[in-house]
Amino acid sequence: MHSWLDGLPADAVNLQSRALAYGDGLFETIAVRAGRPSLLGYHLERLALGCQRLAIDADQALIADELCRYASALGDGVLKLILVRGDSQRGYAPAAGVAPRRILQGSPLPAYPAEHAEQGVRLFDCSTRLAQQPLLAGLKHLNRLEQVLARAEWQDSDHAEGLMRDTSGRIIEGVFSNLFLVRGAELLTADLSRSGVAGVMRAALIEQATDAGITLRISDLSLQDLEQADEVFVCNSVYGIWPVRAFASLNWSPGPLTRKLQAIARTLLDT
Amino acid sequence: MHSWLDGLPADAVNLQSRALAYGDGLFETIAVRAGRPSLLGYHLERLALGCQRLAIDADQALIADELCRYASALGDGVLKLILVRGDSQRGYAPAAGVAPRRILQGSPLPAYPAEHAEQGVRLFDCSTRLAQQPLLAGLKHLNRLEQVLARAEWQDSDHAEGLMRDTSGRIIEGVFSNLFLVRGAELLTADLSRSGVAGVMRAALIEQATDAGITLRISDLSLQDLEQADEVFVCNSVYGIWPVRAFASLNWSPGPLTRKLQAIARTLLDT
Repeated sequence: MHSWLDGLPADAVNLQSRALAYGDGLFETIAVRAGRPSLLGYHLERLALGCQRLAIDADQALIADELCRYASALGDGVLKLILVRGDSQRGYAPAAGVAPRRILQGSPLPAYPAEHAEQGVRLFDCSTRLAQQPLLAGLKHLNRLEQVLARAEWQDSDHAEGLMRDTSGRIIEGVFSNLFLVRGAELLTADLSRSGVAGVMRAALIEQATDAGITLRISDLSLQDLEQADEVFVCNSVYGIWPVRAFASLNWSPGPLTRKLQAIARTLLDT
Repeated sequence: MHSWLDGLPADAVNLQSRALAYGDGLFETIAVRAGRPSLLGYHLERLALGCQRLAIDADQALIADELCRYASALGDGVLKLILVRGDSQRGYAPAAGVAPRRILQGSPLPAYPAEHAEQGVRLFDCSTRLAQQPLLAGLKHLNRLEQVLARAEWQDSDHAEGLMRDTSGRIIEGVFSNLFLVRGAELLTADLSRSGVAGVMRAALIEQATDAGITLRISDLSLQDLEQADEVFVCNSVYGIWPVRAFASLNWSPGPLTRKLQAIARTLLDT
């Protein structure tokens, strides 16, 4: 499907875009099924938080409307929104009254092997560490060189995802996923106040787990926490949940809590 | 002057550009006088280092040739090169054999008040801290949200630049400049192995100072180092050197070493 720029079909963005110059903007990657954007409320919430923290004055209602109209035309696929602070001449200071610009792009749903969800995936041990920047942590902003470097560390299809630590060695997330551990009856996921992307599926699962009476702890996670985990899984808003079956010399089997949440994730993506 | 994309006049870049999606590329901002790009060798050296560290397989000779041709047509102004890893579909992994793309943009030389260079400037005390990421430190890459946030902290014209520290409190650089201190006969500038942009004027001044027998020390700098400095200045490859006359409650007068290096910087930019 043709991309849109500010609501109109477009192939290109002008060279003054601050996304091009500085990565000055945010993005959302949204699964679309039967014309409906999945987890839209969560995506819009994260986007609004990002706009607030980066002081991008975007019309959230207009964006929501445009996402729905694009998704409806797309049918099934992945919708990517890039929200740019606007255009600019040279220099970090934007002109007064700069107008945010919206790019919408559609692509087919990725064809991941079914065994990723069934048997689970192996995580590559990325040596690229995430820097600690509380001002940007959690946001899905356009400054993604760390993920580009991490994803370039492996080419084999044996590893479906990579595990990223921060510069202090804390276990944070996958390159394009968030990570959860299960230990006993407790569900754990990393605190993302210094680094990482607060994924939309992570947010939805945190809410669902809490509603289902599952004990959830958001905290710093160490390699030891990973070693002691009974179950491990990664998640994002496109594929849902993949059990993790291996990382370095560690091995797990997909466990009951992973399967339970996987079913919930599937429902969230399908409705 | 019209911008170029891969050597041809262009106004826009296609929406698959990895610069737009991830800030996946590098840039150089080059002063051009009488058709000649200033400090070209230094710019090309930093660009090549950036390509090496980000594994961008760009044709350096082609880039050098294009910069010279564009500068010749520009006459006087600022030439900005954006080197993008290439185009991409969704996902952090670039396709095999992705071809880097070159964007050249020209703008007039900025009209800074003459007093910046003569009487010196006041530095704003930025609260935005630089994250520590050794893999990206020193590079002029396209992930510049920290600079955007820092530059947005002040609007008054009383502050010509802002001073940035890293997340551990070390004094690193200006938002669009590098910083030097003079203490006694010694010249000091920050170690940029964890954060910061290794400016081309900084590199040229380090070389010139060494050649002129000035003792130079590249090390971590603390607020105490700044307090104990006899002279302070900022530099970049467009404006040369501005003495710093004030930061927070600290005050300095433009000193003899600053004036000596300022004359050298002027010569470097004019030839």
